[in-house]
Amino acid sequence: MTESITIDCLQYAAWSEKVFRQMRQGGVDAVHVTIAYHETFRETVANIEEWNRRFSAYPELIVHACSAADVRAAREQERTAIIFGFQNCSPIEDDLGLVQVWHRMGVRFMQLSYNNQSLLATGCYEREDPGITRMGRQVIKEMNRVGMVIDMSHSSERSTLEAIEISERPIAITHANPANWHPALRNKSDDVLRELANSGGMIGFSFYPHHLKGGSDCTLISFANMVRTMADRLGIEHLGIGSDLCQDQPDSVVHWMRNGRWTQETDYGEGSSKQAGFPEQPTWFQDNRSFPGLRQALLSEGFDAREVGQLMGENWLRFFEASFTAQA
Amino acid sequence: MTESITIDCLQYAAWSEKVFRQMRQGGVDAVHVTIAYHETFRETVANIEEWNRRFSAYPELIVHACSAADVRAAREQERTAIIFGFQNCSPIEDDLGLVQVWHRMGVRFMQLSYNNQSLLATGCYEREDPGITRMGRQVIKEMNRVGMVIDMSHSSERSTLEAIEISERPIAITHANPANWHPALRNKSDDVLRELANSGGMIGFSFYPHHLKGGSDCTLISFANMVRTMADRLGIEHLGIGSDLCQDQPDSVVHWMRNGRWTQETDYGEGSSKQAGFPEQPTWFQDNRSFPGLRQALLSEGFDAREVGQLMGENWLRFFEASFTAQA
Repeated sequence: MTESITIDCLQYAAWSEKVFRQMRQGGVDAVHVTIAYHETFRETVANIEEWNRRFSAYPELIVHACSAADVRAAREQERTAIIFGFQNCSPIEDDLGLVQVWHRMGVRFMQLSYNNQSLLATGCYEREDPGITRMGRQVIKEMNRVGMVIDMSHSSERSTLEAIEISERPIAITHANPANWHPALRNKSDDVLRELANSGGMIGFSFYPHHLKGGSDCTLISFANMVRTMADRLGIEHLGIGSDLCQDQPDSVVHWMRNGRWTQETDYGEGSSKQAGFPEQPTWFQDNRSFPGLRQALLSEGFDAREVGQLMGENWLRFFEASFTAQA
Repeated sequence: MTESITIDCLQYAAWSEKVFRQMRQGGVDAVHVTIAYHETFRETVANIEEWNRRFSAYPELIVHACSAADVRAAREQERTAIIFGFQNCSPIEDDLGLVQVWHRMGVRFMQLSYNNQSLLATGCYEREDPGITRMGRQVIKEMNRVGMVIDMSHSSERSTLEAIEISERPIAITHANPANWHPALRNKSDDVLRELANSGGMIGFSFYPHHLKGGSDCTLISFANMVRTMADRLGIEHLGIGSDLCQDQPDSVVHWMRNGRWTQETDYGEGSSKQAGFPEQPTWFQDNRSFPGLRQALLSEGFDAREVGQLMGENWLRFFEASFTAQA
């Protein structure tokens, strides 16, 4: 614990003792893990049951966290804090009342949409973007009330801008990069990033190759340089990491993420029929053991130790502190 | 059975022996009944279980029907054929595969949206209407394939026009009236009605007061006159009845229809805080015993016996014949 805190605000690995040990080796203090892409309420409960079994099996490595205080305690105990989140609103089905139920079960992030139109907002792969729906406005209000963070990582432009505007509390884009660095439907426009920062929100920069300039060949220098540009433009306090690491997952998982149960044809999302599976990770971000190298690269980019601390996790921790409890 | 067939293509009564006896008294041969507004898959299964208990309890009055042949057989047996339909897509949750499952269970109509944005299409009370979603296109294709009718009664303008265009089989608006007769968000524009008729679709005219010119005070003459205008404009073969009769329902039911589980505030739909409950039915359409009077009014309007037969049920029966079985 000589370094400042390290928080990764998005991972969806094939969870295993190996992955948890690598978190410890990489000095990763907290990870926001995805527990639902397209799952129903009941299916998501089953995913929590699986996490409960992992917490029981590896108590020296991981612990469930619901608050910033839980994250700090985990760090003291040299365990990795696990924070639950949804990448879609499917676990609340059509039921506003489930927001509070899920918060009680420890869920702290929910995307309002995942690629497609949802009951709440539009996903980044729809052709049209009507913004936040009638139910979406109700759900934002309820998430604000109970202390669940609105995550717009996979949502589209107008829906994201409206979520920022409608939400009374700062929102997050837990895993994406600036579109002006690497144009991709999943990356975010200057407008979105400006409004996000102006409203006190956070973005977690992603190492998922489809979000990186040059894809799998993106260099760490190019990445660190982009972080510098964004720090200058948005203010460093709004920036963090959300690696989108999908370590050890079979390609059937990326098929599930993209296709859920909504199509009979195959949707390739950010990939293509020629590159249907998970892309190759960049050499400098293979797994949780890559975080110290990232820290070093940010220092080499000219950020001072305090700034690197902010980028690597302090900003997320401050955001958790402000976001995970009920509205005053 | 001296009269031609009588079909009502939408009711949602508080089902009881009284209502079923009135169907027989009114000579109603078939009714499309709503079995879901906001229910999940499992909740809708429970609603089917309730219908199964009713079929067992009143075998001399009602019988489940899945085909035009079933409707004809019911008429021979002097029973009322009950056809299942959804006013929303909530029973398929986020799962395309449930379309076929529901068809197998006897569901023959599904609205792509109910008032709000759904995973498939937009409802008539949203401010924006982005049209049919990515999942919506898949579901339309699947409904076409298995033989489930796309119903756009509660959907918005662009979504309805796109559904007509995308669907390879004619669609239905089971219960609504022309907006040029009575402007209401739930009633349908000239464009929608023209495209519906051009594509071989059907509209069922509604007696729900909020859809009627003059509301509860609408006269039967005004109604019959509107039918004449629409017959001249669209072709009589596209017209039928979908009364939207919600007989004996407590006001808690209209609250459920409008508010489901999506809002903490109260949505009044077509009503208002001053008129929050079900509106008063027009004197000439109180219950299923009102159908003979309606038949008489259409004759008085100048339709001949064959035309009245078409309007009262033959058109729907022909549509059922073409729509309820798998695509060739």
